[in-house]
Amino acid sequence: MAASPFLLALTMGDPCGIGPEIVARAVTTGAADDAVVIGDVAVMRRALRQIGQDWPVAQLATLDDAADCPPRCLPVWSPPGLPAGLVNLPMGRIHAEAGAAAARCIEAAALSALAGTVRAIVTAPIHKEALSAAGVPYPGHTELLQALAAPPGGEPPPVRMMLANEQLRTVLVTIHLSLRHAIERLDFDGVLQTIRIAHRAAQAWDQARPRIAVAGLNPHAGEGGLFGDEELRFIGPAVQAAQAEGIDASGPYAPDTVFMRARHAPPAHPGEFDIVVAMTHDHGLIPVKYLGVEEGVNVTLGLPFVRTSPDHGTAFDIAGQGVADASSLVAALRMGRVLAGAA
Amino acid sequence: MAASPFLLALTMGDPCGIGPEIVARAVTTGAADDAVVIGDVAVMRRALRQIGQDWPVAQLATLDDAADCPPRCLPVWSPPGLPAGLVNLPMGRIHAEAGAAAARCIEAAALSALAGTVRAIVTAPIHKEALSAAGVPYPGHTELLQALAAPPGGEPPPVRMMLANEQLRTVLVTIHLSLRHAIERLDFDGVLQTIRIAHRAAQAWDQARPRIAVAGLNPHAGEGGLFGDEELRFIGPAVQAAQAEGIDASGPYAPDTVFMRARHAPPAHPGEFDIVVAMTHDHGLIPVKYLGVEEGVNVTLGLPFVRTSPDHGTAFDIAGQGVADASSLVAALRMGRVLAGAA
Repeated sequence: MAASPFLLALTMGDPCGIGPEIVARAVTTGAADDAVVIGDVAVMRRALRQIGQDWPVAQLATLDDAADCPPRCLPVWSPPGLPAGLVNLPMGRIHAEAGAAAARCIEAAALSALAGTVRAIVTAPIHKEALSAAGVPYPGHTELLQALAAPPGGEPPPVRMMLANEQLRTVLVTIHLSLRHAIERLDFDGVLQTIRIAHRAAQAWDQARPRIAVAGLNPHAGEGGLFGDEELRFIGPAVQAAQAEGIDASGPYAPDTVFMRARHAPPAHPGEFDIVVAMTHDHGLIPVKYLGVEEGVNVTLGLPFVRTSPDHGTAFDIAGQGVADASSLVAALRMGRVLAGAA
Repeated sequence: MAASPFLLALTMGDPCGIGPEIVARAVTTGAADDAVVIGDVAVMRRALRQIGQDWPVAQLATLDDAADCPPRCLPVWSPPGLPAGLVNLPMGRIHAEAGAAAARCIEAAALSALAGTVRAIVTAPIHKEALSAAGVPYPGHTELLQALAAPPGGEPPPVRMMLANEQLRTVLVTIHLSLRHAIERLDFDGVLQTIRIAHRAAQAWDQARPRIAVAGLNPHAGEGGLFGDEELRFIGPAVQAAQAEGIDASGPYAPDTVFMRARHAPPAHPGEFDIVVAMTHDHGLIPVKYLGVEEGVNVTLGLPFVRTSPDHGTAFDIAGQGVADASSLVAALRMGRVLAGAA
């Protein structure tokens, strides 16, 4: 591996899921030449065998040694404190040790990113129940990373989920709650904070003044109050408040056409907007996933570092068979580079 | 025009909107060779001039005369009772006479379809406020057609809106009301009725047993009750009730991936389903419109005849300039033929 100021940390994910094998697939197909795998050495050796590759594993003493890793060799850094015997756990099942190991690797990756050793972290899938069995007090990556990014004694930073592919980037105001509760939860502050987070993130990656479209909640964005008043009560005012801060936000737009308008497929269809802020999980994810999930990348915005991940889970049903598709992880690596300013 | 057992009725829409000129465009580009225009002769002559065409208008005494219309001639049948002087109304404004004329043409088209003279009706855009100014007691096409299709002294048939393009057909359980009210309005009967209407419509056009996917309401279709219980309370039970009737319905599926799974783009991506039933306006319309609105066609299901329309309005701001895009009307004509079994 060539020395790179744009080193990416690539966590192995749950050792009993498809994480290690898609990581091995990404590395051996040249899609992760600028990445160090943070994981267990024996697990990664097994993953190489699972996908039928005879590459050796280079066990790094520190992340800085990544530059010395020879070609056709998978560089792994094992953070201190990984449970022993991970490779003996049966694949495709929930294990507390597997959950603990996955969390430890994420923690090490986040600390390396905070220290500036890596420019971005890309995370392979973990299993929520394995995390929970290990006593990790966070339900998933996002909350764990948020806690790690909190200043000493301070509050964790507000974050938002972005789902992105080559054509569309959407940032969600609400995510994993019922549609009924999402509507109740929406307010001026949540919308404005989402616009601000999207604005700052885009500034960090490529644009000083990204064009942010804000989708409405209701059909036709409420049709002037006829089909709901959330647009008049707080979505519109939040857009205006963002504009007053110098942000290039506009809307609220009718949800059914704003994603089409933002879709960036040049030259025939250059998108009108760089980011769409969506009020609900499915308004935002339906269009990003429409042309194929393998392209979709999950990005956590609001952290003090770039974090991307594939948009799928541990796939326990096929784990260990060497058949898992690494496309979404490869897309996450590519997006990690773009967002970190390396591509 | 050749005699055709698959004659389509094409209504001119509001004479002061873009309807007449896109109708003229469709006819003069050969996209409506099997259609008779139901409208005002002078208005259609003006529309031909607006688009720079010198085709003559053939004024038909009856719809049956359509077969005698020579080539390069626009066949128009004017139903009795059209207001006089329509061509003198300024373009791009709301006029009661224009609304009355538009309604009269729709009525005539529907009666011809009910009588079996035409196989499908394709409607150019009308203006709700012009309808209202004319004292028409229905807010739009759908309600007017429903009333016309009611048996003498009986209830109007339940109808549903389908939006369709070459890749995707979605049928909506709820449409023009706030998202909050849509959630309140949803119930077992509404979902089951929508599945039945979609099933019967698809049987009529091409398939004895269409594969109907039912999308959930909540993220991840409720994740087993964690993110909302509508899937457990009535969406799932409605799917099971439909299955018990012999309908090939399945779901509820996670809204964010079901449209992607149904997208029919062979050979690489043959759709898994023929129709997706969506709980809300925007869940259903976001994916259909994502690749471009000009392809989207609005279809009213549940009527005793086929009715399609372009998915846009009267565009008063550009009406009469001859610049309006007829693509969606052309797609509506194509879809009308397909659904009527003529293509």
